[in-house]
Amino acid sequence: MPKKKAIIIGGNAAGMSAAAQLRRLDGDTEIIVFEKGPHTSYSSCGIPYYVGRTVNDPNLMISRTPEEFRKSGVQVWTLHEATRIDTKEHTVGVTDLLSGRKFTERWDKLLIATGAAPLKPPIPGADAEGVFGVSTLDSGIRIRRWMEENNPKRAVIVGGGYIGLEMAEAMNCRLGLDTSIVERAAQLMGTVDGDMAECVADDMREQGCKVYLEESVEAFLTENGRVTGVKTDKRTLGADIVIMGLGVLPNTKLASDAGLPLGVKGSVIVDKGMRTPVPDVWAAGDCAQSFNILTGEPMHIALGTVANKHGRVAGFTMAGLDEEFPGVLGTAVCKICKYEIARTGRLEREMISDNISHICGIIESGTRADYIEDAGSMRVKLVVELPSRKIAGAQIVGTEGAAKRIDTCAAIITAGMTVDDVVNLDLSYAPPFSPVWDPIQQAARFIQGLIRRKQRGRLSR
Amino acid sequence: MPKKKAIIIGGNAAGMSAAAQLRRLDGDTEIIVFEKGPHTSYSSCGIPYYVGRTVNDPNLMISRTPEEFRKSGVQVWTLHEATRIDTKEHTVGVTDLLSGRKFTERWDKLLIATGAAPLKPPIPGADAEGVFGVSTLDSGIRIRRWMEENNPKRAVIVGGGYIGLEMAEAMNCRLGLDTSIVERAAQLMGTVDGDMAECVADDMREQGCKVYLEESVEAFLTENGRVTGVKTDKRTLGADIVIMGLGVLPNTKLASDAGLPLGVKGSVIVDKGMRTPVPDVWAAGDCAQSFNILTGEPMHIALGTVANKHGRVAGFTMAGLDEEFPGVLGTAVCKICKYEIARTGRLEREMISDNISHICGIIESGTRADYIEDAGSMRVKLVVELPSRKIAGAQIVGTEGAAKRIDTCAAIITAGMTVDDVVNLDLSYAPPFSPVWDPIQQAARFIQGLIRRKQRGRLSR
Repeated sequence: MPKKKAIIIGGNAAGMSAAAQLRRLDGDTEIIVFEKGPHTSYSSCGIPYYVGRTVNDPNLMISRTPEEFRKSGVQVWTLHEATRIDTKEHTVGVTDLLSGRKFTERWDKLLIATGAAPLKPPIPGADAEGVFGVSTLDSGIRIRRWMEENNPKRAVIVGGGYIGLEMAEAMNCRLGLDTSIVERAAQLMGTVDGDMAECVADDMREQGCKVYLEESVEAFLTENGRVTGVKTDKRTLGADIVIMGLGVLPNTKLASDAGLPLGVKGSVIVDKGMRTPVPDVWAAGDCAQSFNILTGEPMHIALGTVANKHGRVAGFTMAGLDEEFPGVLGTAVCKICKYEIARTGRLEREMISDNISHICGIIESGTRADYIEDAGSMRVKLVVELPSRKIAGAQIVGTEGAAKRIDTCAAIITAGMTVDDVVNLDLSYAPPFSPVWDPIQQAARFIQGLIRRKQRGRLSR
Repeated sequence: MPKKKAIIIGGNAAGMSAAAQLRRLDGDTEIIVFEKGPHTSYSSCGIPYYVGRTVNDPNLMISRTPEEFRKSGVQVWTLHEATRIDTKEHTVGVTDLLSGRKFTERWDKLLIATGAAPLKPPIPGADAEGVFGVSTLDSGIRIRRWMEENNPKRAVIVGGGYIGLEMAEAMNCRLGLDTSIVERAAQLMGTVDGDMAECVADDMREQGCKVYLEESVEAFLTENGRVTGVKTDKRTLGADIVIMGLGVLPNTKLASDAGLPLGVKGSVIVDKGMRTPVPDVWAAGDCAQSFNILTGEPMHIALGTVANKHGRVAGFTMAGLDEEFPGVLGTAVCKICKYEIARTGRLEREMISDNISHICGIIESGTRADYIEDAGSMRVKLVVELPSRKIAGAQIVGTEGAAKRIDTCAAIITAGMTVDDVVNLDLSYAPPFSPVWDPIQQAARFIQGLIRRKQRGRLSR
């Protein structure tokens, strides 16, 4: 009997996690990965650090090379682009991008892990030289090389989300460019509530970065095909380099052409085992749909953590074992200049727009006991569902050592704990780590007090 | 009708938390606190930082002064020692330590929050000048003043637990004394398993501190009533100052004399509402008994976190409201030179001695993505109960940024999550904070693999 063959399209987080997991669980199936770029298993999240010269060797951001995968029995073909999927014939059409050779490969099982691509709105001049999106490791290498060759002095970042801000930090604080951020919304970091994002904008400005909120980019000005400026609805900014940080969209043309149904933002619809509705076809990572643990609603989350989990689950189910992706809380953390910013679960504005009864509380506290020399500050916001008193969301903004507490909140929310359970948790304390009541518990106690006063107020009326 | 009167004996974490909580919930009852020392509401945990000159003003370690409490309607009498409790007559005998005046005060409700005192084994010479225990803020002030006046060159720390090690760090790294640690057990930090404590001893030695394990102190050598050395069963160490860090015992002579039943280590037995079996008498903090969330067994834990929770609950129940202390996991964290050390839940050696089926796994990982410049290292150990696969305990040792993850583990254990639930948790990631699978999840995945291989091995036999 010939060997079964599993083909994986896409050799980054989800694809290679699935390949590695499948290899561990199933020693027999032949595993072939086609990756159109030159690298596998790299950390996209590291790109701003490479561009900002914190990291100087891009190979450091590759967790496993094609050669290492080959040694473990996974065949990896980089610079090979899958161009067509036939789900009836169980084949995939592939182009070797170096030689131009085209061939067809048969599969028994197929995993689509084609990732996501930066959103490129149809702004005039968006294709000019010097305008970059941030996606693959290769795109990061290209940005850095272009900067070395062209020595830009003025950067404009379009989009104030985490990628935009990480790139703004690299440009402004690390590379010393005259840097501006243009964001259409009234706040930076749209993944947190406005009252948690303010200090981030203040800090960026203090670092010398210009921040323009509630401004839309109308055009990129060019000369000889090269960017020279950014025209917004309020002003014109000179620019030698422009970084687009407007988020990403799933890369699902290939899947869609093959007849796979798409969901949120065009991501491939999958069940909890990462199976698409088409037999023997899986999807995972930034191209696949996720769902919210709390609401069950479909979501698209393009994060490395999720892609790795997707891939791991796909590896299990492709091996014929039961495993389920548990869904997401949208947990995320990033570091922008002096601030760490983290969030998980639901925002206040989501509770309002979904018309869910809730109460929020924000406290200011310290990252250490206040008498310790380098104690920093932090702000914790908890979103609590009523009348259940369950924690629905948490946001943290603070200096070094503040934000990883979001993981405690993610566990709390996943477990369905109430604000009272949080006060009761046996969390750790020593002066170099936190005040005696951890800031998370301070926020929970504060909200207990708010609810108590609210109830008293109601009784006394 | 005369006002009800609540008397609280002890003005530190538990007593003052209870006073503040009772005041908030009940505006009528008269609240009087008797504290035999000069300070209230201070951070005992800050003492090593004061002795080590990280903190120079002891007032910074006082979170609320007697004057501040008085303003909020709590009468605080410092340097007033309660000497006798009559639970039938509902009175307490008090001595004003400044004037020597004795008086009797009537109470409707009484809270005993008399704390704990350093264990002083009957070693010859233990009363010599220069031999110190670490307990009250006053004791810290006395150590520092004595050191300023006597300029000791050689310190011996007796006991390698967290207080001993924090004081050793202060003496060795901060103050430059020739420092030795003598510990009877085969490892430092008996609150973690031996395989997690090794690197701490190695690091202390690297910092120039001498560490003597499996050695017992037999006598303190003295000259003219002043310590000059420490004689162990293996050697004699010269010493100008000796710090006893052998743990603490509850201060419960007063409670015991009043007929209150004592439990573990002589701590006052209380119910979940911090009520003693004697009507109208409560106990809280380092003098009161706690219990283990996982096993329900009574424990004595003398930590600020627990004392604050005890006090808070006592404040509620003294106000006539329902509230329960949830028990402890023994969560603790400390920083010793370059290492952060944290633990929660059950140790491997406890599972063995209790004969509970389990599996453990240790992984080595990083505090950041490995390509980030100042990435540190960390070691995570998870203890997993079988066949339930529930996380029973966690231990973390690592450099800056490692250990606060123990709070996530505390939430995980409290929620009864399995090793599989942990792998599935939506934890945060960005390169400056962790690898893409957080080290906690790496440990959980490692243990999943161990269990899988064990089961396969069993099937193939």
